[in-house]
Amino acid sequence: MCKNIKKINNSWICGFTDGEGCFYVGIYKNKSMSMKEQVMPEFTITQHCRDIKLLYSIKDFFNCGKIKKNHGDIYCYSVRNLKHLYTIIIPFFEEYELLTSKKYNFIKFRWIVKSMVEKKYHLNMEGLNKIKFVKKKMNTKVNKIESNLLEIDG
Amino acid sequence: MCKNIKKINNSWICGFTDGEGCFYVGIYKNKSMSMKEQVMPEFTITQHCRDIKLLYSIKDFFNCGKIKKNHGDIYCYSVRNLKHLYTIIIPFFEEYELLTSKKYNFIKFRWIVKSMVEKKYHLNMEGLNKIKFVKKKMNTKVNKIESNLLEIDG
Repeated sequence: MCKNIKKINNSWICGFTDGEGCFYVGIYKNKSMSMKEQVMPEFTITQHCRDIKLLYSIKDFFNCGKIKKNHGDIYCYSVRNLKHLYTIIIPFFEEYELLTSKKYNFIKFRWIVKSMVEKKYHLNMEGLNKIKFVKKKMNTKVNKIESNLLEIDG
Repeated sequence: MCKNIKKINNSWICGFTDGEGCFYVGIYKNKSMSMKEQVMPEFTITQHCRDIKLLYSIKDFFNCGKIKKNHGDIYCYSVRNLKHLYTIIIPFFEEYELLTSKKYNFIKFRWIVKSMVEKKYHLNMEGLNKIKFVKKKMNTKVNKIESNLLEIDG
C-alpha cells in the first residue's frame, strides 16, 4: 500500500523553502523615487529548468507570483508584489515555520515588509537607512541574534 | 492562531530532501574486494554548520545514519549502512515520493541498492559494470527516460 504524496502540501513547501527558498531585499537606484532608491522585497525559489513544471505548481499553490528565467538553465518562482507578500507569503511562513536558520532571514524580511515598506517608511531617509542596516545583517553569522531584536509593530 | 510545525515531519523531510538531499553511489578502489572496487551507496543531506542541530534532528527522525564534516563549515547527514538504506531510507522515499527530478536519481539509487548490491551482484564483473552504467546516467538530462527502464526485481 502506497500513500504517495502526489501534490504539493504545506509541509513540503516549508521543507523545500528551507532548502531552495530565498527571502531577499533588493535596493536599486531609481530616479523616480523620493529617496532615489527603490526597496524591493522578493521571495524566490530557484530550480534548474528540468523542474520548471514544479515551479509552476508552486505558483499555483500560492496563487500568486511569476516564473522568471535567472541565467542559463536556471529559473525561479518569484513573488515581488507587496500585497501578495503581505497577505500570502508572509502569513504562510508564520504558520508553517521554517526549521533552518533561514527563518532568521524570514524574520528580517517580514520586518522590512510589514513594519517598514507597508507603512511607507522606506520613503524617508531614516526608514531607508534602517532597512539598509537590517538588510546587511541578512545571511550573516549573527543572523539569529539580530533577528531576536526585531519586533513587528502593529 | 498559530499551528507552527515545531518538529520535522514526513512531508517536510520530503521537501527538504528535494532541495538539499543527494542519492549517490560511490565506486572506490579497494584491494580487499573481489573486483578490487567497492560500491558504496550513500544518502546525504548537506548543510552549513549553523544548521548542524537540524541535521541531528534528521538523524533522530530516521533513527539511523551519522553526522560528518564535509569541508570547511559544511556538514552532512549520511546513511551508508546497507540495512538502513534498504529498510529505512528507501521505503521512506517510496512512501513519500520526491517531487523534483531528484526522484529519478532515487529510482536508480534504489535499483542499485535493492536489485544489485543487496543481491551481491556487485561482486562480479557483469554486475559491477551494470552498476557503473546506471551510475553514469545519474544527474544527467536523460535521467527521467533512463529511470523508466529500470525495474526492481523481486
